[in-house]
Amino acid sequence: MAKTMDKMNKRGIFITFEGMDGSGKSTQINALKGFFEERQEECVVTREPGGTKVGDKLRDIVLDPANTDIDPVTEALIYAASRAQLVRQVIKPALERGINVICDRYLDSSIAYQAYGRGLGPAVPMINKEATGGLMPDVTFFLDVKPEEGVRRITEVRNKSGGSLDRIELESSDFKSLVYEGFLSIAESDPERFLIIDGNRSAEEITEEIKAVTENLLNKQGE
Amino acid sequence: MAKTMDKMNKRGIFITFEGMDGSGKSTQINALKGFFEERQEECVVTREPGGTKVGDKLRDIVLDPANTDIDPVTEALIYAASRAQLVRQVIKPALERGINVICDRYLDSSIAYQAYGRGLGPAVPMINKEATGGLMPDVTFFLDVKPEEGVRRITEVRNKSGGSLDRIELESSDFKSLVYEGFLSIAESDPERFLIIDGNRSAEEITEEIKAVTENLLNKQGE
Repeated sequence: MAKTMDKMNKRGIFITFEGMDGSGKSTQINALKGFFEERQEECVVTREPGGTKVGDKLRDIVLDPANTDIDPVTEALIYAASRAQLVRQVIKPALERGINVICDRYLDSSIAYQAYGRGLGPAVPMINKEATGGLMPDVTFFLDVKPEEGVRRITEVRNKSGGSLDRIELESSDFKSLVYEGFLSIAESDPERFLIIDGNRSAEEITEEIKAVTENLLNKQGE
Repeated sequence: MAKTMDKMNKRGIFITFEGMDGSGKSTQINALKGFFEERQEECVVTREPGGTKVGDKLRDIVLDPANTDIDPVTEALIYAASRAQLVRQVIKPALERGINVICDRYLDSSIAYQAYGRGLGPAVPMINKEATGGLMPDVTFFLDVKPEEGVRRITEVRNKSGGSLDRIELESSDFKSLVYEGFLSIAESDPERFLIIDGNRSAEEITEEIKAVTENLLNKQGE
C-alpha cells in the first residue's frame, strides 16, 4: 500500500536528446526506451516539432522544403506553438502521472537553431517562456557530433532509404556551424543538466553512458 | 520630379479593422478599398490569420473546428506566427514602398481574443512584441457591434450562403463577451489610434465616418 502511494506521488523523469541531424539521437532514444522497458518503468517517447495532432501539422509546415520563405521569427513561433501543445497535451500530463518522458529535441534546439543559428538572440527564450510554461528537462543528452559528420551520416542514410532532406537539413554549413556553437554555449551555461556525450564512439558505448546517468537519476528519484 | 521623389519617400498608411465576427468588417474594408482606388492611391488589402502562403496554412489549422484541443498558448503562438510572416512579407514591404495597407484584424485581435478571451494576459503582448517587430497601425477602426448581434448577423449570412462556422465563431457567448470587453479596454487605453465606430448604423453612414478619418490621415501625410 505504502509502495503504491509512493509510486502515485512520484513524478516522471523528463529526458531530452539534442544534437545535429545525424548525431544518432534516434538510435539512442530507442536504446533508452528499451532500458526503461527492461526495468518495467513506464516511458513515453515523443519528438519536436510534432508529437500532437496540431503539432504534426505545424511540423509539416516548418520542415517542408517548399516553404523557402518562412521568416526566422515565424519559424521560431511555429516551433514554440508545437512545443506549447506538446508540453500541455503530452509531457506534463505524463510526468504528473509518474510516467517518464523522452523527447527528441526540446527548448535547447530552439536556442541553438533560432537564437544562435538564425541570430534571433534573446527573443527566442522570451517566446519560449510561455511555450514551455517553465518546464525544463531533468537531463539533456547532447550527442556531440560535428555538423559535417552529421551531414555525412544523414546523407548516407538517405541515400540508402531513398528519403529526401527536409528544410532544416538542407540549410547551409555556415548555419549548421552556428547551431553547433549554440549547443556548446548551452552546455557551458548549464553543465549540470545539459550533458555533452561524445557521439563519435560506438552506439553501444554511448548507450552505456546514457543508461548510467539515467539509472542514477532513477535511483535519486526513488530515495 | 520633386513630386515623384516625395511619393517615393512617403510611407504608406497602415489601417486595421477590428470587431466581433459579424461586425461588418468585410463590407467596410471593401468600401475603404474603393475610396483609395477613387483617389488613385495604391492600397493592399490583407487579413489575419493568413495573407501569406505559410500564414494561410496556419489559418487552416487554427480555424478548423476539428482542432478542438488546441491549447490557448498554442493558439496565441500560431496567430503570432502568422502575423510575423505577414508583417515581414506583406505589410512592411508595402508601407516602405509608399503603398497603403488595410488589414482585417491585427494585434488587437490577439489582445482581445487571447489575452482577454482566453485569459492569457500579459503573455500575449510579450509574444507579439517579436511577431510585430513593434509595427502598430496608424489607425484602427473598431466596428462596435455587440457579440450577440454579431452572432445573429453571421448566422444569417451563413444560412444564406450555406457556409459553416469556424472554430472561433463556434465559441461560447461567455468567451465572446470577454473578447468584446477586451476590445473596449484597448479603446480606453489607446483612444487616439483605436477608434470606436458605432456599427449599428447603415453601412453607408459607417463608411462616411471611416472615409473622413482616412482622408484626414492622408492629408496629414501629404503635409
